[in-house]
Amino acid sequence: MIEMNGAQSLIQSLADSGVEVCFGNPGTSEMHFVAALDSVPQMRAVLGLFEGAVTGAADGYARIAGKPAATLLHLGPGMANGLANLHNARRAHTPIVNIVGDHATYHHGFDAPLESNIDALTEWLEGWSRRSESTATVGSDAADAVAASMDSAGRIATLVLPADVSWGEGGVIAGPRDISPRAEVSAARIDSVVGAVNAEGRTTLLLGDAACSEAGLRAASRIAAATGAQILVETFPAKLQRGAGLPSFERLGYFAEHATEQLRGTTQLVLAGAVSPVSFFAYPGKPSDLVPDGAAVTTLASVGDDVVGALEAVAELVAPGVEPVLQEVNRPALPSGPLDVRNWADVIGALLPDDAIISDEAATSGWAIPIALAGAPRHDVLTLTGGAIGQGIPVATGAAIAAPERPVINFEADGSAMYTITALWTQAREQLNVTTILLNNRAYAILRGELQRVGADGGGVVAQSMLDLSSPDMDYVKISEGLGVPASRASTAEELAEQFAAALAEPGPHLIEVMLPPPS
Amino acid sequence: MIEMNGAQSLIQSLADSGVEVCFGNPGTSEMHFVAALDSVPQMRAVLGLFEGAVTGAADGYARIAGKPAATLLHLGPGMANGLANLHNARRAHTPIVNIVGDHATYHHGFDAPLESNIDALTEWLEGWSRRSESTATVGSDAADAVAASMDSAGRIATLVLPADVSWGEGGVIAGPRDISPRAEVSAARIDSVVGAVNAEGRTTLLLGDAACSEAGLRAASRIAAATGAQILVETFPAKLQRGAGLPSFERLGYFAEHATEQLRGTTQLVLAGAVSPVSFFAYPGKPSDLVPDGAAVTTLASVGDDVVGALEAVAELVAPGVEPVLQEVNRPALPSGPLDVRNWADVIGALLPDDAIISDEAATSGWAIPIALAGAPRHDVLTLTGGAIGQGIPVATGAAIAAPERPVINFEADGSAMYTITALWTQAREQLNVTTILLNNRAYAILRGELQRVGADGGGVVAQSMLDLSSPDMDYVKISEGLGVPASRASTAEELAEQFAAALAEPGPHLIEVMLPPPS
Repeated sequence: MIEMNGAQSLIQSLADSGVEVCFGNPGTSEMHFVAALDSVPQMRAVLGLFEGAVTGAADGYARIAGKPAATLLHLGPGMANGLANLHNARRAHTPIVNIVGDHATYHHGFDAPLESNIDALTEWLEGWSRRSESTATVGSDAADAVAASMDSAGRIATLVLPADVSWGEGGVIAGPRDISPRAEVSAARIDSVVGAVNAEGRTTLLLGDAACSEAGLRAASRIAAATGAQILVETFPAKLQRGAGLPSFERLGYFAEHATEQLRGTTQLVLAGAVSPVSFFAYPGKPSDLVPDGAAVTTLASVGDDVVGALEAVAELVAPGVEPVLQEVNRPALPSGPLDVRNWADVIGALLPDDAIISDEAATSGWAIPIALAGAPRHDVLTLTGGAIGQGIPVATGAAIAAPERPVINFEADGSAMYTITALWTQAREQLNVTTILLNNRAYAILRGELQRVGADGGGVVAQSMLDLSSPDMDYVKISEGLGVPASRASTAEELAEQFAAALAEPGPHLIEVMLPPPS
Repeated sequence: MIEMNGAQSLIQSLADSGVEVCFGNPGTSEMHFVAALDSVPQMRAVLGLFEGAVTGAADGYARIAGKPAATLLHLGPGMANGLANLHNARRAHTPIVNIVGDHATYHHGFDAPLESNIDALTEWLEGWSRRSESTATVGSDAADAVAASMDSAGRIATLVLPADVSWGEGGVIAGPRDISPRAEVSAARIDSVVGAVNAEGRTTLLLGDAACSEAGLRAASRIAAATGAQILVETFPAKLQRGAGLPSFERLGYFAEHATEQLRGTTQLVLAGAVSPVSFFAYPGKPSDLVPDGAAVTTLASVGDDVVGALEAVAELVAPGVEPVLQEVNRPALPSGPLDVRNWADVIGALLPDDAIISDEAATSGWAIPIALAGAPRHDVLTLTGGAIGQGIPVATGAAIAAPERPVINFEADGSAMYTITALWTQAREQLNVTTILLNNRAYAILRGELQRVGADGGGVVAQSMLDLSSPDMDYVKISEGLGVPASRASTAEELAEQFAAALAEPGPHLIEVMLPPPS
């Protein structure tokens, strides 16, 4: 056996369990981990300038790769900086092996300045966690963490790594663990859903989790074609396959008013990998629960169950021989003239390349995307699953690492962009094929609407100033160039079309700042 | 009584307890708070683009203003983004009233996407916390939070604010609470310290907390002059008063080797508002505890005690009639030629304006600052108290809000800058007199050294790449301009001198990118 330290055994064990990428932002307590990277050539190390970029990239990577990346974070504060995008990953059920470096075991009692209660942060993630206790077992801990991250539905598996466990000699490589398969859905559940879709009234199937994949969508489409059931996709799917050649379904609206309208008249609601619909926020005098009064709710599959198999089983029973309805190729015409909140999406729809990955954090500027891209070539849409803004650029970064051969397009709202803008630098460093469409309307536009919707008196000068990003205007071209990503600005549809085509044609990352009118 | 909602009563109660500024990054659940800002003109609302900028600004504000600002954060993920700088504030014992918006009380059970266990994050801060339970009592909660934040040593007081508590009618304004004064130090403790400084051998006084103020420094200097005791200041003081006309003491070194050298031969160590010295990180085979073997440790004052009164009492006993030794005016000569890690600090020392506030996050590029600025006009130094990088720009921002008439100078390392770079935008928006000296050496230089110091084999290509910021080089001039702050680049001492003088002469924020040689 080769002599190795804990860090080397940890990284080799991760690699042997199939982890190929480590997104990191290390500090002193992780220096042995960093030094050990050279001893495991199967592990690709990708540096982020801020932990939110690191964790968001790990999320985007796993959504596309279908397996976890590792992170490397520096003690409690480094983990804290990564938490918001881990929250999004938790809501996406993304497998991530979250490695948090810590002080040496014997150093804790001294309450050094970076000491903090890491366990409290781990608890917040509601995933799997372990604190490595010895150099001899850290390899085994790593293999367990990989398996835990992929256990049925994906989750965050956090391994706290004391510096002395890392630097100690006597590390032992552990082999891969068995991964629990998704739980099969019982015949009884399938029967009850068959009953629901065949019942009187209106049945709505709400798809989430793996039901948003091609196989799930095709089965759902067959059920709809045979029974007249309505199919909706959850509001923020982790990954939704879309475009020509696939069934096309509406997503449940973000605004409760919209969702209520979509669900109106539903008497049977079937949850297929989705949770029961609730309002994103509470509003005075409005219900939190969006299930129509009196509707019967049946769960076909919970998150992590074999929802695709279950949908296919239902389809075989209610729609034998029925084919799914597939979206035809139908691109929007290339628009012209000044850009607005509608026509920018048509430019993208007209020019979207084959097999693109879309990281969508467009917020209010993105309402036309589902329409404009419905008949474009097939693509994967990755959405803001947990509502913690600052996900889009990192997720695009990680997705591009997972699929270097695919074009990645990131629709990014100006307000959201500034949370994790430094992820652009990682795109430049790794020369990733990401095109960021930065939608600049100089406002937290969604909050202007929300100020009215929550019933708050929104007329005050101070209140409005807190939702305004125009004083001073940000120049995203300069910011992007400063971070090493070539950038341009588009004010007309013609400019956007030309710049988007050029960005796609040239390798490496690009940013296009799309100038939109201020929101009304 | 005027009818008001919970948010209005909350903000008015904060104002009545002396809180004048609210740094915020709100979301939908905080819209009633935002709307209520217009009803309380005494409260200044300052928008940050990212919560780390918000919490760091609140820290900088309070260190200068001597009283808390409020924050406004958006649910668990927004709080998570602000945690790292709250960690620094906790270590600085800074009073902050941390307002965390939350879902309406009745909305929790629905597990909406932004739902999370806020209590776990609050626990991490180890401060005061409360969840507001009713509109009628939220004003009282606010007054309690202000008092709690200022209780003896400052701390983070977190008030979780459910949206329905905020929007409900029937808010009641609460008056200010009594603030607990600092605990007086007992005569017995003072006697034991008198004994220590008069004992055989070498006595070292380690100053922290309020002992780093003019009064504390003067008393310490008198003790040293009369007894020959060595005076050291803790490694990372929250606020250290320095410059001509004040006693000048060395700070305890960051690197354990340096600190050990400073403490060598000490037989009595007296802690005056400082904690017992420990190594910042653990290193293989090196001690964590930096107290010399056999030295007797005496605590004169713990953090939050009346350390100034205690030092003055000791001085009256051991140094009656003895005057403190004051630093004379002694500026470095203006250097010339290419900039390096030493001479940039001399340029600043030669030109530092009167009564400046310095936010120091220069890391390895800043080692010459204490030397170069020792005899410059008096100034306050705010340091990175908790080791969580990304503090410097936000702290400078908050300090400038607290003291608009004073020049604020921020020494900022390139790696650290990228954590919270968006705070520059707030400086532009508020037209703050902050000059950022951005020290660009294109590396996480401190980690290059640490890779060697921890005994890690640091020769690998991958390991070195994880500490390198030069691929691609960042252009901080463009980034700064993109965020609305005028910027320039200096490669020679002459250029830096000219640009620094110009920045000081012109109102509003400026950034100067100082090009340093790559670290060896």
